[in-house]
Amino acid sequence: MNEQTIKGTKRVKGVAPNVDADALLNDKRKVFLFGSPSYTNIGDQAIAYAEEKFIRNHFPYYEYIEIMDYATDAGIEIVKKIIHENDIVCFTGGGNLGSLYLDIEEDRRKVFAAFKDYKTISLPQSVHFEDTEKGILEKRKSQDAYHQNPNLTLVARESQTLERLKNTFDSKVIYTPDMVLSLDIVPREIEREGVLFILRADKEKVTDEDFISELMRWAGETTTVERTDTVLSEVETIDYEDREKYFMKMLDRIRSKKLIITDRLHAMIFSIITKTPCLVFGNSYGKAKHSYTDWLEELNFIEYTDKQDIDELEQMIERLLKAEPNDIDLSDDFEPLKEFFKG
Amino acid sequence: MNEQTIKGTKRVKGVAPNVDADALLNDKRKVFLFGSPSYTNIGDQAIAYAEEKFIRNHFPYYEYIEIMDYATDAGIEIVKKIIHENDIVCFTGGGNLGSLYLDIEEDRRKVFAAFKDYKTISLPQSVHFEDTEKGILEKRKSQDAYHQNPNLTLVARESQTLERLKNTFDSKVIYTPDMVLSLDIVPREIEREGVLFILRADKEKVTDEDFISELMRWAGETTTVERTDTVLSEVETIDYEDREKYFMKMLDRIRSKKLIITDRLHAMIFSIITKTPCLVFGNSYGKAKHSYTDWLEELNFIEYTDKQDIDELEQMIERLLKAEPNDIDLSDDFEPLKEFFKG
Repeated sequence: MNEQTIKGTKRVKGVAPNVDADALLNDKRKVFLFGSPSYTNIGDQAIAYAEEKFIRNHFPYYEYIEIMDYATDAGIEIVKKIIHENDIVCFTGGGNLGSLYLDIEEDRRKVFAAFKDYKTISLPQSVHFEDTEKGILEKRKSQDAYHQNPNLTLVARESQTLERLKNTFDSKVIYTPDMVLSLDIVPREIEREGVLFILRADKEKVTDEDFISELMRWAGETTTVERTDTVLSEVETIDYEDREKYFMKMLDRIRSKKLIITDRLHAMIFSIITKTPCLVFGNSYGKAKHSYTDWLEELNFIEYTDKQDIDELEQMIERLLKAEPNDIDLSDDFEPLKEFFKG
Repeated sequence: MNEQTIKGTKRVKGVAPNVDADALLNDKRKVFLFGSPSYTNIGDQAIAYAEEKFIRNHFPYYEYIEIMDYATDAGIEIVKKIIHENDIVCFTGGGNLGSLYLDIEEDRRKVFAAFKDYKTISLPQSVHFEDTEKGILEKRKSQDAYHQNPNLTLVARESQTLERLKNTFDSKVIYTPDMVLSLDIVPREIEREGVLFILRADKEKVTDEDFISELMRWAGETTTVERTDTVLSEVETIDYEDREKYFMKMLDRIRSKKLIITDRLHAMIFSIITKTPCLVFGNSYGKAKHSYTDWLEELNFIEYTDKQDIDELEQMIERLLKAEPNDIDLSDDFEPLKEFFKG
């Protein structure tokens, strides 16, 4: 950050933390990422990490500028002053489009409406509006906001969301995997030991706690067992500059285990990156399940189940532990996103 | 750069221009790149650019630290003070291993000998020691220096070099394409117009100047014709911070043409990245030719020829201009390099 003001506006923490101040005013085509997460969900942190890599690797001639979630209002004001006709406005991907995370949904509405004259995109998301009075009301609010923007493209990261987006919004819809699956990290060599349960403690959780206890007891008979979540509780926020560090720490933790048991989509994806056998349960509205069946079923060391029968799971786990981890190449599946940013 | 000294040594321009000073002393595993080019050959600049992307994309948990060519001696002193057992020392890739570019070869010898106790690699190169008294003497000097280092791996970027390295050195040898072919840049949309000749003006040049004039005259009958080189003359040096800018400028220039005619390996590679039809002639020792036949022959919009017959070339060019540019995926061919850095 070299300058204290941009076009008469004071620089604000969380606006463009990833570039020097002069990047805001150079003549490159700009890509603005709104909603860049400061909360401690490492899945969403990894998504933002992957979004930056995607743009910087495939479009190095663009200037990529992030606006942290807590700076959305200030960011909108500043970006309005510097944006040019051909620039692109993005809102970060994740699994929060809908009525479950209204603070984020409200920011998304603001951004799409504020930049209605610009090429705009909601990066790969899972969508869920609850089928309640509140859910229906929130859906209408999102429709009203999104439909102000005729230049908006929505990206679904699994087929269930693809259908929901098409049925809910008039915007253009495209279809790619979760952004984290676009990374190509070579996992670090770490000795593997024990089983790690990575489990939700939020409103999307459906796995029965008694069943989890039973499963943990069973696993504990033969190996070490730990339990954690991909949402960190040891820190309150993760800002741009610490993102990679916490993401790498989580990858290392997963890479050090013989088996992951999870109901978190990104614990599954981190297991894929680190070639760690992984058994996956569902969340409340199927985002892990559909990502698995749409893109990942060919992976022999990852298995999805809705069953809560310990004998069947035992057999599944034995199969997973024996598998020689295979590869899938999803790079072609990101072509629609490359086409979007190219145009 | 936050600090003025590192372990009592003053910071030196050209040592670690790509990181903050604290990166030199953190507890991450380090990858040091020596020989990072400051000269204006955009092929070699693109190689260094690709090397950085390769490490940062596949091994984001490493600290990647460059030492510019002009700071080799100071860089060796500083790196010796901060290097740890498990760190990796690289010398940049290119087409300069041998007796043709002795200033670079001497730096390479120094680096390999200085870090003989560390995992060391010469990134993908083409090799040419001249078959003269001088060439044989220089080969012996390189052997003496390289063989001091039992931890050295050499990477050949085409089959001719693979054989030469195996016959010349006792070091471990691996085989991958040129680093620039590991990039995945989506070419910018630019209107195409005219033919660009990109031709050497150096000691590797073999294409006959009369023939070039004839070819340029012929092309000029139907379209605009320009001539340039991938070695820039408008600037004297390109430092780390300007690398991307000049590389992108060259890509844009190539992307804006209907046809490239060149004897430069990297003009061919930039044509591949930008999907620009390209006719390639050889240099003095076949580095473009062998890269083409080893890795790139399947590309329908790139053709290599040793012929200097204008009628035959006319037909070739017509074929090239008609081709719907196809893709090849070389990412698997970089596996040996991933394995090296992983271990």
